[in-house]
Amino acid sequence: MGKYYMGIDLGGTNLRVGVTDERGHLLKVRQVPTEATNGSTSIIGRMVDLIKEMNENYKVETIGIGSPGPLNPFEGIVLSPPNLPGWKDVHITEIVEKRVGVQTSLINDADAAALGEAMYGAGKGKHSSFYITVSTGVGGGYVINNKIVQGEHGYGAEIGNMIIKPKGPKHANMNAGSLEAMASGTAIGREGKARLGIAGGATEVFSLADEGNQTAIAIINEAIDALAIGIANLVHTVDPSVFILGGGVMNGQTTLFPLLREKVDGYIYEGLHGRVAIEPASLGNHAGLIGAAMVGIK
Amino acid sequence: MGKYYMGIDLGGTNLRVGVTDERGHLLKVRQVPTEATNGSTSIIGRMVDLIKEMNENYKVETIGIGSPGPLNPFEGIVLSPPNLPGWKDVHITEIVEKRVGVQTSLINDADAAALGEAMYGAGKGKHSSFYITVSTGVGGGYVINNKIVQGEHGYGAEIGNMIIKPKGPKHANMNAGSLEAMASGTAIGREGKARLGIAGGATEVFSLADEGNQTAIAIINEAIDALAIGIANLVHTVDPSVFILGGGVMNGQTTLFPLLREKVDGYIYEGLHGRVAIEPASLGNHAGLIGAAMVGIK
Repeated sequence: MGKYYMGIDLGGTNLRVGVTDERGHLLKVRQVPTEATNGSTSIIGRMVDLIKEMNENYKVETIGIGSPGPLNPFEGIVLSPPNLPGWKDVHITEIVEKRVGVQTSLINDADAAALGEAMYGAGKGKHSSFYITVSTGVGGGYVINNKIVQGEHGYGAEIGNMIIKPKGPKHANMNAGSLEAMASGTAIGREGKARLGIAGGATEVFSLADEGNQTAIAIINEAIDALAIGIANLVHTVDPSVFILGGGVMNGQTTLFPLLREKVDGYIYEGLHGRVAIEPASLGNHAGLIGAAMVGIK
Repeated sequence: MGKYYMGIDLGGTNLRVGVTDERGHLLKVRQVPTEATNGSTSIIGRMVDLIKEMNENYKVETIGIGSPGPLNPFEGIVLSPPNLPGWKDVHITEIVEKRVGVQTSLINDADAAALGEAMYGAGKGKHSSFYITVSTGVGGGYVINNKIVQGEHGYGAEIGNMIIKPKGPKHANMNAGSLEAMASGTAIGREGKARLGIAGGATEVFSLADEGNQTAIAIINEAIDALAIGIANLVHTVDPSVFILGGGVMNGQTTLFPLLREKVDGYIYEGLHGRVAIEPASLGNHAGLIGAAMVGIK
């Protein structure tokens, strides 16, 4: 009999619970709306019910919870994520362990996706990988030898806050000119509003660009340029075996990849031109679930 | 009887050969001028003579050569360092192994210093450290668990080329607005020439700043600000246990450290304020020699 592992993807919109085998194959998934506005007690109650229900069939070894940050992965505390309103210093692993009786870990959602992609997605078999998700925000996860580099204080791969353009636009509690303020879907939407007078966010900017609107094309070009600077900085910091790009802004936008690769080449040493691997994420929205499940595997 | 290891610091000015014990204690050092203009054959000849002479007494297990980059650490090839004129694709480890009969490794000089500091200097006992040297250029080395993160193509910690200010000043073959172009001794000297009309480089700018010259103070302040942005980007990428700063610009300038720490706090998440360790290098100019010797230890 094989062993089973449970992964949980606690998103602002959906709560998903999945069971994998030792090799990251997803055997079963359940998804329910998070109903984030109901607060932590209600959400954790439903999460525990789902865990117990699935555990009856699978008797899992460990549980890994992927949650939006900020969080303390070492002590299993969800601090106060903007995407989970009303949550404040919730000791989630302690609560789940007490009610379910299975060892539980907490991991940043981008780190969970990074680990899933590294082990069983676009980073499979590579020594190291840097996962970057570009959606409403910009997040990441750096993996060496199938282990997340969380850093001394758990701030590893918090690349949304990397400074791309000093004194540039500001986004949330981040640095002026941060990668998130320059390259996220929110940033693209902000520029669309300012320069095109549209309210449809990044989706509308992409539609207009497809129709040949030059301003929309320029906005996307600038966002990809900022992303290329961020990637070049990561090349000159950790030089990972592969960059894996996911998230709503990159998904399905296959034409962005050649543009991004060309721009990255413009910001790295000549000896590296054409040699930096930049690939789309391959596990879709299951990456986080699989990665969270794998956290418990020794 | 303990085991001995040899480290070599092949600098543009001096060539140093040292022997350490297993715990990185330097037992003997010999130093001669590199006479870099004589070319690789002459320099390697003198290096081999020194190695043989010291090996008569110590019978070392391995030899590690720290050299200016660019180089290929995996195949032991010095490519074409600006500081070693006339060198071009020199297979230095092969040459030394053939003539001396001892297993030899090649490592970037900044990586060697980073490893020395990580194992026996300011990073001793820490899980991870990021060494940054600020002198004529800006270099670095990232160490986890006493192992250098060289990266897929050997470009790990080539932070001199990190982009701090897009379209900023250009230095050598690096990006416009690179960390090296913004924060190195060369950058400080360039600004001194442009804004103060002096020709004495960074040293003269620091002297004038000590005398209260406001322009000189502003130039240094801007360089430290660029360095702070670079360090903040590294915090949000790998969040090392400690940053270790060495090199001519930082050495002995103890007043720069409080300024740098304050500026770094201005560019990182609030939860990290006052918690990022930024310390001076502690092994002086022996760090590279000791680190190079340690490369061979398994």
